[in-house]
Amino acid sequence: MPDVVDLIRAKRDGGRLADPDIDWLMTAYTGGLIADEQMSALLMAIFFRGLDPAELRAWTAAMIASGERLDLSAVPAPTVDKHSTGGVGDKVSLILAPLVASCGAAVPQLSGRGLGHTGGTLDKLESIPGWRAQLDNAEIVSVLRTAGCVICAAGAGLAPADRRLYALRDVTATVESIPLIASSIMSKKIAEGTGALVLDVKVGSGAFMKKIDAARDLARTMVGLGAAAGVRTSALLTRMDTPLGRAAGNALEVEESVATLRGEGPEDLVEVTLALAREMLALAGVEADPATALADGRALATYREMIAAQGGAPDAPLPVAPCSAVVPAAESGYLRRLDAFAVGVAAWRLGAGRARKEDAVSASAGVICRAKPGDQVTAGEPLLELRADDEARFGRALEALEGAIQIGARPPEPQPAVLERIGP
Amino acid sequence: MPDVVDLIRAKRDGGRLADPDIDWLMTAYTGGLIADEQMSALLMAIFFRGLDPAELRAWTAAMIASGERLDLSAVPAPTVDKHSTGGVGDKVSLILAPLVASCGAAVPQLSGRGLGHTGGTLDKLESIPGWRAQLDNAEIVSVLRTAGCVICAAGAGLAPADRRLYALRDVTATVESIPLIASSIMSKKIAEGTGALVLDVKVGSGAFMKKIDAARDLARTMVGLGAAAGVRTSALLTRMDTPLGRAAGNALEVEESVATLRGEGPEDLVEVTLALAREMLALAGVEADPATALADGRALATYREMIAAQGGAPDAPLPVAPCSAVVPAAESGYLRRLDAFAVGVAAWRLGAGRARKEDAVSASAGVICRAKPGDQVTAGEPLLELRADDEARFGRALEALEGAIQIGARPPEPQPAVLERIGP
Repeated sequence: MPDVVDLIRAKRDGGRLADPDIDWLMTAYTGGLIADEQMSALLMAIFFRGLDPAELRAWTAAMIASGERLDLSAVPAPTVDKHSTGGVGDKVSLILAPLVASCGAAVPQLSGRGLGHTGGTLDKLESIPGWRAQLDNAEIVSVLRTAGCVICAAGAGLAPADRRLYALRDVTATVESIPLIASSIMSKKIAEGTGALVLDVKVGSGAFMKKIDAARDLARTMVGLGAAAGVRTSALLTRMDTPLGRAAGNALEVEESVATLRGEGPEDLVEVTLALAREMLALAGVEADPATALADGRALATYREMIAAQGGAPDAPLPVAPCSAVVPAAESGYLRRLDAFAVGVAAWRLGAGRARKEDAVSASAGVICRAKPGDQVTAGEPLLELRADDEARFGRALEALEGAIQIGARPPEPQPAVLERIGP
Repeated sequence: MPDVVDLIRAKRDGGRLADPDIDWLMTAYTGGLIADEQMSALLMAIFFRGLDPAELRAWTAAMIASGERLDLSAVPAPTVDKHSTGGVGDKVSLILAPLVASCGAAVPQLSGRGLGHTGGTLDKLESIPGWRAQLDNAEIVSVLRTAGCVICAAGAGLAPADRRLYALRDVTATVESIPLIASSIMSKKIAEGTGALVLDVKVGSGAFMKKIDAARDLARTMVGLGAAAGVRTSALLTRMDTPLGRAAGNALEVEESVATLRGEGPEDLVEVTLALAREMLALAGVEADPATALADGRALATYREMIAAQGGAPDAPLPVAPCSAVVPAAESGYLRRLDAFAVGVAAWRLGAGRARKEDAVSASAGVICRAKPGDQVTAGEPLLELRADDEARFGRALEALEGAIQIGARPPEPQPAVLERIGP
């Protein structure tokens, strides 16, 4: 039996961990033979020393082996999923899953909840009356067979080692490590049983990765892990300097998603969604034009079917926040910058997000961007609308927005929403 | 109140910790507000990033403040202590404390137990029938006043944060960090209340520090911490390539210490002991020649007084191991190398040391070096004598000695026992 202190010391001193040692570490940790203080020291050593590609493959495989791997063989269509590293106003999944499903691929999207300034897909959908995030494995397969897509909570049986490791990383400042991030994401996605996967790696102030180099590194690492596990994987790097679309907040984003499915979506949101849809369909081997499926209402119909299959009432009115406040333009000109991170923190403080995973979120709180970078604005006209359940929330939300808005005489250079593709 | 995750992240990213944050960290950790997994992540970050001199002073002060500081004001003589970083056959304290005391300074030597391949002073003295390591504060002062020196266990009240941190470092591979080693040693020594302190920093295969650069760095760091806390501190770097003296093992080292106090000590042991004694007397401001005190029997008389004051019978026979084995010289020539680490591990495996702090040690097990590097040897003549309570111990002890002995046609270059002095 390996000695855990020797393994921590080896990694600390820049050595590599052998495959059987990694298997043992994961089994011993989930089995309680390795204490949290030992694993956190190892994680910090990995933060500094990294894991080489072979170590990372073994680490990820050991995380997958800690639980079950979903069997989607009963689903008749090719399966393909999307994972986003998280951004402000990132409601892409709500549109993308039914869009791709309406084109003929099956989308098993097992998701998490939001933490911090980025929202979680499940939190958004839970603002729909009756909608259930928790499905058992048989229900997941059943919804996939009927609606063609499912968005639900990842069950406790998938990569349970990741759950424990993530909770530990969160309290020990060992989150920001590319191999640890990549293995956390990919272990869950591979365990989910999808045949193909497109990663939306966000870059910019509102994203986890602020710089394109780090985003590219993460994307390449994850694409490599997917390929090694037999999951066709590619990644798009997409901009996250300003909120995606106009809404940030749970019900507000559902509303915007439905508008987008109706063909009334904001340009940047549509651009990113279609780019991801094309990538997913290509990996799934399905020839279809998602722009058509979006325009002709098929995607909306699939969305309604998916929501209904999970107990939701797609036509029920969404909750509306009782309190609102407006941030007006300080001057006239062009909106040059509307910072994603600041808007995300404002929405979080308004009640849309949670600080700890036990916290509840408000369904209706959030921020609506009345203008987007590039728009012409007039002094005094509303730039942002804030929504909350309680007026007391506005103060700290407004503080978060200080310095987030920049207006100038000329419009900013137009920027593409999709920056780069990282292929398999 | 600071956020512990923010502080871990700051250190991880190369930032510094402010004094109040360090105070809070230590208080919160000893108070149970910071979990072991958080502290171990911070310790690993410190392993990689270090602590600057001001951070280290604050860290050490916070460790001292976690407990009491011994009050030695009732002791009429100037107080001076010695601390060794640990070596094989390092029985210097047993000779040095009574030697310096017999010259007129008071030596309050609060010690620890051995772990791994280096023995502990308390373990050695406990081979003397009746001798007690545990004294309360009043007893410490009383023995100091009567005998002039005391060697006993550091009470639980001194730097309790160090006790918890050390146990944590031991299981998380965060022991080998100069600021963490320096603060651990110095917090206990400063809390002990000594007015002056001489550090014996061992260098070589049998020492914690294998290289002189690291040893010098540790010595300078500790001398600086002592000065900052108002304790006159200096350090000698001494060789630890081969066992000090001829014996490694608890009762075997007591026996060799008494022989040295009788004027029959091996050359290297006498040289190191006298150099440390001169350094201690100089820091204490006492003018005396320790060589005279060793030669005229005063030091031996003080030793007997100290042992008796702690319940020990200085004339009682020491335990003798029932089993012995001999390692003969493989060829004739000069003994060029007798590796300290290998002999330390052999003594440990024979039963003289412990692997975990709960383990018991054998009083009589150990190794006697019949030859020292530089001695002429004849093929077949005994080089080492091994002693154990059980013959089954010999196999693994002999394995540890493989490659440890080198015999050649010429004697090795003579090496000084004391390499360097690091002044205040």
